[in-house]
Amino acid sequence: MSHYEAYLIDLDGTMYRGGKRVEGAAEFVKYLETKQLPFMFLTNNSSKTAIQVADKSNDLGIPARKEQIMTSSMAAAIYISLQQGPSKVHIIGEQGLVDAMVQEGHEVVDDHPDVVIIGIDHNISYEKLTKACLHVRNGASFISTNGDRSIPTERGMVPGNGALTSVISVSTGIEPVFIGKPESIIMEQALARIGYDKKQVLMIGDNYHTDISAGINAGMDTLMVETGVSSFQEIKNYHRQPTYKYKNLMDWMNEKKQKG
Amino acid sequence: MSHYEAYLIDLDGTMYRGGKRVEGAAEFVKYLETKQLPFMFLTNNSSKTAIQVADKSNDLGIPARKEQIMTSSMAAAIYISLQQGPSKVHIIGEQGLVDAMVQEGHEVVDDHPDVVIIGIDHNISYEKLTKACLHVRNGASFISTNGDRSIPTERGMVPGNGALTSVISVSTGIEPVFIGKPESIIMEQALARIGYDKKQVLMIGDNYHTDISAGINAGMDTLMVETGVSSFQEIKNYHRQPTYKYKNLMDWMNEKKQKG
Repeated sequence: MSHYEAYLIDLDGTMYRGGKRVEGAAEFVKYLETKQLPFMFLTNNSSKTAIQVADKSNDLGIPARKEQIMTSSMAAAIYISLQQGPSKVHIIGEQGLVDAMVQEGHEVVDDHPDVVIIGIDHNISYEKLTKACLHVRNGASFISTNGDRSIPTERGMVPGNGALTSVISVSTGIEPVFIGKPESIIMEQALARIGYDKKQVLMIGDNYHTDISAGINAGMDTLMVETGVSSFQEIKNYHRQPTYKYKNLMDWMNEKKQKG
Repeated sequence: MSHYEAYLIDLDGTMYRGGKRVEGAAEFVKYLETKQLPFMFLTNNSSKTAIQVADKSNDLGIPARKEQIMTSSMAAAIYISLQQGPSKVHIIGEQGLVDAMVQEGHEVVDDHPDVVIIGIDHNISYEKLTKACLHVRNGASFISTNGDRSIPTERGMVPGNGALTSVISVSTGIEPVFIGKPESIIMEQALARIGYDKKQVLMIGDNYHTDISAGINAGMDTLMVETGVSSFQEIKNYHRQPTYKYKNLMDWMNEKKQKG
């Protein structure tokens, strides 16, 4: 696999799980650094800023600079710029989404938005959903950071942003543009930022339905690890398979060493 | 139309709209009373108790006793009894839903419910949705008072209970049983209560997609008025038409008078 020029890497389930580092994650990233191979972390999590994500990663011993982070919020902010330039955006979401919009030069507004964007919001309310529906019905573009139906937590699977988004799409009858994995939009932003063609870049992740599908949808080679959501057993009959499958990134490192 | 033995009548959009009585509504109900024709009001609104609904109706000059009200919450409570007897129910919803469950003899619980039921809740929160998702994933039956995607208000179309319900169904992948119009469940409860066969009862309402479809789905004759949500123009190419169409119930009264 050393023929890839650059790497896009999922975080949750691939580098860490909850507050714990995944086996081989730190070694793999340090290997990339030693070889001076460019890499970027891609997360569907819209609630955290790039700095917050990098801090968490560093705290867990996985070296990451904020320039190496792309969240679905950042990809959404860039997408809006490309589509319609600096815009008035009405936000349902948390700090990471607000910061991404402001940093990209968009104006956060309550009324008369050009765009309604929704990301995970643990303080979701009927009034927030109502306002979003009214704006979308009045013609604002409708964007959702990601379509994740549920999020694994210690309590079990809890509602993800895709589930919250459905309130607006079901009520208005208007479907949003989704930005995050498995959509190609976040992948294209990341490839543009890292500066390599998709054929030269490997996408690494644990979740078949987001990470691996995103890579396949974007025309990239993919490496699936079994350290998070999806299992090889579960995906064995799927038509579209990852290019590579390794139990974890330590196995990949070991195989590399054996091959010399 | 005098050959019908009993009448099921929608409230919002048919008897009143917001705080205003619809033309012909009071006269029509008084005519039924004079002729001693039994009638019952059916509402998808799950948030109000039967007494609250009857009070509003009476305040607007439309005579209604609480025994003549069936809300989607009441129909849901009866449905649960018929399906599985007295049950432990976990509720997302407002006073009308809680009261209906308690009056039917169900126990309202926070944990380990037999049933999760959702009705419109203006204090919806991420924690409420999370708990409901966890219970449904753990095997609780999943019931929704009604599938209304949006509710007309002075501000515009705002999210209905069907839109809120989608958070749980999208997140868990499990579809609920819907109780209210256009489903047959609320109709069967109402017919059982009023004590006539469906062929002897006329369903009256303004909303094609709830009231009229409910009547048609239940095998009843239907009368559509144009005083609320749906227009005759909008439905003119639909395959399934209402049995009768009148601009409002005053027109129906006038035609009756002319015919003597």
